[in-house]
Amino acid sequence: MNEYMQAAAEQARAGIRAGHGGPFGCVIVCGGRIVGKGHNEVLKQKDPTCHGEIMAIHDACKALDTFDLSGCELYTTAEPCPMCFGAILWANIGKIYYGCNISDTEKIGFRDKLFYNTAMDRAEELDREECLEIFEEYSKIKNKIMY
Amino acid sequence: MNEYMQAAAEQARAGIRAGHGGPFGCVIVCGGRIVGKGHNEVLKQKDPTCHGEIMAIHDACKALDTFDLSGCELYTTAEPCPMCFGAILWANIGKIYYGCNISDTEKIGFRDKLFYNTAMDRAEELDREECLEIFEEYSKIKNKIMY
Repeated sequence: MNEYMQAAAEQARAGIRAGHGGPFGCVIVCGGRIVGKGHNEVLKQKDPTCHGEIMAIHDACKALDTFDLSGCELYTTAEPCPMCFGAILWANIGKIYYGCNISDTEKIGFRDKLFYNTAMDRAEELDREECLEIFEEYSKIKNKIMY
Repeated sequence: MNEYMQAAAEQARAGIRAGHGGPFGCVIVCGGRIVGKGHNEVLKQKDPTCHGEIMAIHDACKALDTFDLSGCELYTTAEPCPMCFGAILWANIGKIYYGCNISDTEKIGFRDKLFYNTAMDRAEELDREECLEIFEEYSKIKNKIMY
């Protein structure tokens, strides 16, 4: 077994044995070194965003003191859900290795696969003009750090 | 202007004036009451996952002491990115109202629109068999709370 996936698996096992959430562990690797790790803590934190990948990104960003994980790789016990895949893109993580796929995840009762096929039809535009004024104010700020 | 969008806009303005991140504010409403709020803190927290919607979900979950925001509505100054839309689905938030759309967001330099069209081709399966063993262990745990 790959050493980094082994570390992600250890995170996952620790998580389910502690009752923190689903069987999802993750590590982030930079230059051959594990710089962040985490496991699903949705039940522990009572927060639906606390997936393994998100927790590992938090941990890596804290360790490296940056929001930019360019050059890092992510190892996760299961194919990322849309939320986590989005987080991976924002973090500029270039490569993802996953163990179980979303069909495997569906079989143990999680909704990831469904979410990949959910259109944003529960969303509706409201007060765009007023919100554009805030965008305008932001645009005028000089020397902004972009992310 | 809608009173909840007004509150989301105030969050967004406070965020950009403090230099916390982009012009994105959010509130979560349950039974006519604001139960959570937040704004983009990617730069402040040095963490790419700290979008306004994610911060508001954290806040609402803490206030209501649950990972399940069924029955809540979300008001955000800009159309949610794939990460935040995924978080909204996991949180069971049934309705989203947004101000600016993703084309507006693209115009001020953010990558949301690109991410909606990014396939997960940077992901590769690895050690599925070993990871399935963890899924198997999880499946055998009795009386689990599903989310």
